Amino acid sequence: MAHIDFWFDFISPYAYFGWLRIREIAARHDATLRARPVLFAALLNHHGQLGPAEIPSKREHTFKDILRYATLNDVELTGTATHPFNPITALRCSLPEVAGSDQHTVIDAFFRAGWGRGADLGDPAALQRVLDQADLDGAALLAATREPTVKDALKGQVAAALERGVFGVPTCDVDGELFWGNDRLSYVELRLQGRDPLPDEAVERLLALPAGAVRPGARRT
Amino acid sequence: MAHIDFWFDFISPYAYFGWLRIREIAARHDATLRARPVLFAALLNHHGQLGPAEIPSKREHTFKDILRYATLNDVELTGTATHPFNPITALRCSLPEVAGSDQHTVIDAFFRAGWGRGADLGDPAALQRVLDQADLDGAALLAATREPTVKDALKGQVAAALERGVFGVPTCDVDGELFWGNDRLSYVELRLQGRDPLPDEAVERLLALPAGAVRPGARRT
Repeated sequence: MAHIDFWFDFISPYAYFGWLRIREIAARHDATLRARPVLFAALLNHHGQLGPAEIPSKREHTFKDILRYATLNDVELTGTATHPFNPITALRCSLPEVAGSDQHTVIDAFFRAGWGRGADLGDPAALQRVLDQADLDGAALLAATREPTVKDALKGQVAAALERGVFGVPTCDVDGELFWGNDRLSYVELRLQGRDPLPDEAVERLLALPAGAVRPGARRT
Repeated sequence: MAHIDFWFDFISPYAYFGWLRIREIAARHDATLRARPVLFAALLNHHGQLGPAEIPSKREHTFKDILRYATLNDVELTGTATHPFNPITALRCSLPEVAGSDQHTVIDAFFRAGWGRGADLGDPAALQRVLDQADLDGAALLAATREPTVKDALKGQVAAALERGVFGVPTCDVDGELFWGNDRLSYVELRLQGRDPLPDEAVERLLALPAGAVRPGARRT
């Protein structure tokens, strides 16, 4: 049986789009699915990178891109009330250590309320209302996010993501193979069907290509 | 009549894929096409960003991704002999100031010989051979790339790209609307057909979203 780790952060609209599809993809191919919240900003900090919303023209391109996608794919998209926002409380709430067997319900509620309908996913009071509306105990879940063990658990997810080589969200780790981006869920499906079009012998050749020049501005990570 | 500016750098395999499609797309929709070589490294330097090949796990992901795409879309892909390489001479050769009415032939020859069949696009001698094999005067074209006015012309392209908000390659500028990535050529086509699914009123709303938090690590550009 195949297994998918789905790495996500609520800050990313592409993680929202991916989340809306990944459970069905997993179910269709009889794969187990583990949702793994990770702080995208920590991945960016690690590599010294800017996120898509941090370069003005890329931010504009991203927002237009997600609106086109949402229209074409009939996905509800209002945009979160603020952006960027601090997603840490929402991410902690989504940890199995906090949400337990309701984890998928919590994640689904946050993504749909935020990107779908405009809730402020950076505001704990708004998060509590979203959870209450999903018939969960918002106050209890929010209280749990303040526990030191829970804070450590999210840090552990970040460390695990970096260790695994996750550099962006959403990323699907399908039995050890990484697929980055909502755009690549079609490749995830091919992989799960045993039809991954990757020519393995070519991979080793390309990865071994010698560098002919290194950009002076490049920082090695 | 619509017009497309196609911004590219030979360093990018996605620019190769995009190049293979954009002329047909332009022809199909009766759009004029201007090929605009730009030094991707200069865009990265401007924003203080790393390229996809400069983060080890992203480099591996990129190479696997392009191999999957090439297999699925029946595109010849050997990979350039070295990567990264210095694309400046190849880019200068591709300027209208150097290639003139042979510009598309030059670009096509470099992309196909390099990414398609493994030529070293960072090596002037290899570039000259590629041009000669395309029935062009390789020696004369290479000599022209050493002219100060040609060096300035490429710098001018970089300045124009930054001015225009181009942050990556390939980027299509369709009458003022930017579409980044080979993945978004389907949106370019919709735009050319007058069927862009972008809800304009939503764009302004999303772009005006207030920031709820700014990442401490973020550098403003």
